[in-house]
Amino acid sequence: MTHPLFSRHEVTLQKALAAIETRGYWSPFSEMPSPKVYGETASADGEAAFKAHLNRAFQLDQPATGDTIGSEASPFGFALGIRYPRSEPDQLITAAASAQKRWREAGPTAWVGVSLEILARLNRASFEIAHSVMHTTGQAFMMAFQAGGPHAQDRALEAVAYAWDQLRRIPATAYWEKPQGKNPPLAMHKRYTIVPRGTGLVLGCCTFPTWNGYPGLFADLATGNTVIVKPHPGAILPLAITVRIARDVLREAGFDPNVVMLLATSPDDGALVQTLAQRPEIRLIDFTGSTQNGTWLERHAVQAHVSTEKAGVNQVVIDSANDIKAAARNIAFSLALYSGQMCTAPQNIYIPRDGVRTADGTLSFDDTAAAIASAVEKLVADPARAVEILGAIQNDGVMRRIDEARTLGRVLVDSGTLEHPQFPEARVRTPLLLQLDAAKDATTFTHEWFGPIAFLIATDSTAQSLELAGSIARDHGALTLSVYSTDDAVIDAAHEASIQGGVALSINLTGGVFVNQSAAFSDFHGTGANPAANSALTDAAFVANRFRVVQSRVHVEPKTPTAEVGQTA
Amino acid sequence: MTHPLFSRHEVTLQKALAAIETRGYWSPFSEMPSPKVYGETASADGEAAFKAHLNRAFQLDQPATGDTIGSEASPFGFALGIRYPRSEPDQLITAAASAQKRWREAGPTAWVGVSLEILARLNRASFEIAHSVMHTTGQAFMMAFQAGGPHAQDRALEAVAYAWDQLRRIPATAYWEKPQGKNPPLAMHKRYTIVPRGTGLVLGCCTFPTWNGYPGLFADLATGNTVIVKPHPGAILPLAITVRIARDVLREAGFDPNVVMLLATSPDDGALVQTLAQRPEIRLIDFTGSTQNGTWLERHAVQAHVSTEKAGVNQVVIDSANDIKAAARNIAFSLALYSGQMCTAPQNIYIPRDGVRTADGTLSFDDTAAAIASAVEKLVADPARAVEILGAIQNDGVMRRIDEARTLGRVLVDSGTLEHPQFPEARVRTPLLLQLDAAKDATTFTHEWFGPIAFLIATDSTAQSLELAGSIARDHGALTLSVYSTDDAVIDAAHEASIQGGVALSINLTGGVFVNQSAAFSDFHGTGANPAANSALTDAAFVANRFRVVQSRVHVEPKTPTAEVGQTA
Repeated sequence: MTHPLFSRHEVTLQKALAAIETRGYWSPFSEMPSPKVYGETASADGEAAFKAHLNRAFQLDQPATGDTIGSEASPFGFALGIRYPRSEPDQLITAAASAQKRWREAGPTAWVGVSLEILARLNRASFEIAHSVMHTTGQAFMMAFQAGGPHAQDRALEAVAYAWDQLRRIPATAYWEKPQGKNPPLAMHKRYTIVPRGTGLVLGCCTFPTWNGYPGLFADLATGNTVIVKPHPGAILPLAITVRIARDVLREAGFDPNVVMLLATSPDDGALVQTLAQRPEIRLIDFTGSTQNGTWLERHAVQAHVSTEKAGVNQVVIDSANDIKAAARNIAFSLALYSGQMCTAPQNIYIPRDGVRTADGTLSFDDTAAAIASAVEKLVADPARAVEILGAIQNDGVMRRIDEARTLGRVLVDSGTLEHPQFPEARVRTPLLLQLDAAKDATTFTHEWFGPIAFLIATDSTAQSLELAGSIARDHGALTLSVYSTDDAVIDAAHEASIQGGVALSINLTGGVFVNQSAAFSDFHGTGANPAANSALTDAAFVANRFRVVQSRVHVEPKTPTAEVGQTA
Repeated sequence: MTHPLFSRHEVTLQKALAAIETRGYWSPFSEMPSPKVYGETASADGEAAFKAHLNRAFQLDQPATGDTIGSEASPFGFALGIRYPRSEPDQLITAAASAQKRWREAGPTAWVGVSLEILARLNRASFEIAHSVMHTTGQAFMMAFQAGGPHAQDRALEAVAYAWDQLRRIPATAYWEKPQGKNPPLAMHKRYTIVPRGTGLVLGCCTFPTWNGYPGLFADLATGNTVIVKPHPGAILPLAITVRIARDVLREAGFDPNVVMLLATSPDDGALVQTLAQRPEIRLIDFTGSTQNGTWLERHAVQAHVSTEKAGVNQVVIDSANDIKAAARNIAFSLALYSGQMCTAPQNIYIPRDGVRTADGTLSFDDTAAAIASAVEKLVADPARAVEILGAIQNDGVMRRIDEARTLGRVLVDSGTLEHPQFPEARVRTPLLLQLDAAKDATTFTHEWFGPIAFLIATDSTAQSLELAGSIARDHGALTLSVYSTDDAVIDAAHEASIQGGVALSINLTGGVFVNQSAAFSDFHGTGANPAANSALTDAAFVANRFRVVQSRVHVEPKTPTAEVGQTA
């Protein structure tokens, strides 16, 4: 009954189940791109595999029209020239339906076993995927490797573990015996069949195609659904490689590979995607992207269970600090990392206009702002080092937003252009830091300015800072909140604000952990409790509605003899 | 930390957790209205308590306008004359918000402990609730006692157990330590706070106000939400008593009783309810009722997590039977029970036009139909016995529907009027049985005819019967499917049809179990996999999205000394 691929990966699965329960540190996928772990030739092989994709047609043996599609360009300054097969949504819906029955009948250990085998293969392809993530998203290589490879695989495994944790609670059969006093008991044999919802649609984003795309993909697969993966038109390759590997595993395991298919689209295919998202066959949608598109799906794709991650306003409250320079360095790194193009990057940094208490006395607002500004400037002073943190700007929209933002307030640090040593055509921009005032700039800072744009906002007090943090998270969404304080009462108030805002809180980060980072198996990414996301990665709610249970019952002979029942009744 | 009410009921909770895992028979609440269990005077006391409600104002110390509302009438033929306090939705929303903080902070063991204490008190009030269910729904006393009392309490306890089963998986804290090679590990203390969604709205129905209302109410409460209970205007009393008991328990436990409030409405308050259902403060909605209203909520109350149970077409497939009379008796009882006013009552009974194989040879369609017709006639032949099965017709809509249905096909058994020995004004009607043909009457039998109306439908074959059963369940919804066959291949095909239709299957029911019945802790009521319900009573998906987790993290000293890390790295 247990599928061999389940048995092969069961030890890993058991460890993942233990990890989501204790939520300590754990990962089966090494985040260091080390030859010792991945093999001596893995790095060179992965880069070669990536380069072999360029300027040719991507082979994928799925239902397609015969046409091709694709216009990806590396933010590091060159066109990828990859053409993907174009498929009609109708073709994919039909093929998914035809793949469904056999996949559904294979049952939970097959779904989970195949999912885990796909993950093991993806891990081996981490270098190829890292280069493909780098040259679609603009992430520097190390981040592309970690976030696009092992960390994304961790999040996928987490989703599989949560799915299995729910699936295993449904018994396959039950014996039900109801006493009837002195009469024979009523006895029934019951059978419980896990039934997947149907076809899932995973809508990827252009900044973290695998990290944000994998949880929905693997939650769908592990609960027996078929999946159509529609990447962002600007970041198709990482998910195309993923789909190809998934199809290889499915085929080898004897399943119709059309359990997982790719829908490559062009930027003007929005209407096509909206039509697809409302098809009755699409029962699950996982989306990462704009608030506009996410909210549209929540309101219109009512036939589906829709999980969204949308825009938010991440915030930092500075109240007091023993070592303001360490705080400033940590914040500066968070602002610079991948040029602020992270859904977790801070944007609003609240500082009391009367200054910040430190071990050396009160530091004025201006001096606090200067400390952060200086930390940012130092971080990007050496272009060769800076580009490995900043990466490149993913798209022209972010470039335009930087220009637009410059006029919003007093510029504390201007955004500059850096030349990338390896990629002279890369779009590299340093963070823009502006000074705003809580009293008059709320229309500016209550929405997201996605990219390397941050505001140092003067407030009347830490109480006002926390009030803003809680209410903005609640009303406009947020994935992260960070507080710096040496005062326990302020930390308590920050906890309360984080609960009001439904947002995860980081406290006094001055070392090697950054507010942008979210560790699988330990940190819930998003809460589902504010407008930035209607679900969390990953919890029971993320997986529980991806399958249903259909039962049967039939009378059987009672196990308890009637005489005995009579005696004990 | 553990709330004393949690400790008081922990043994029951543990048994419930074991029951939902093994899904064998279990119930802590006796379904027999026996003096030995409920006390010598419980029956008389309960009836007296019910009668004391009549023709007066129902006392409920919650925010209200000062006006009263209420026009319930017993289907057994008298006006209840009970006036409930009228509250404005705004008053309730405001009071719920103000009750929320202290309730939320009390945490999971308080939510679960208070919920279990409320249930224990409800159980003691089972006779009072039985009479109130009887004289609002029209159920005969025994059913009103069982379904309205202990069985509803079972379903509530099941929801609490599922909620706790999910809540207990979230650790309160975690220690996270990430190795950093030869450097000191990164170490963090994390805190996970369960945050309820806000305010839940429970929209009751007029046939099973407690059985269908309790799961949502208790799932909300057990996950820390405040709840506004809006009964159907025709069946307010059972839920008003429930709310009063809940408020007593909350008050005694030191909480604001406005954690649970009643919204009594009149039949023309539909717009008011729709407005309330779309309020941003309402984050959870549980609805039982018409497809029209349920679908409206699913599509328009997009700010809330909406669980609905709506109309469906329940079906019986007769292929073959060893003892057709036993099958006919079982089916007849299912049709007669509470005059078919159950969401689980069968409506479409498919019989091959070539007849049914039995131990004594093939029985023609007409003879099979006659066997069922005869069983129905026998069941209602003695009015004194019949009214204890049939109960009374809940509302005039059902009365009109019976009249309308008479013209739909050949009448096999006409619906008649019975005089109730105790209640001469009671609306008692016997089941109407019509003959239809699969080939030409699909427009009639593909939607619900709620009430004592059933169709014997001639089909070309069992294969056609099963095809209809699966596709009608899938497209129009169903809560039950029943099959009679001595052929294993047909049973297998029925399983497949039940999976296609996403509907629970009962096989060869000829004894003391009826397709209408759904046993808590063992049978999933509804699947969430067809249009009759978007969720099941009860599973993880029913509870998992009623709370969210907000976490915090702060650096702590690593437990693993750096030197040791260095050595093992």
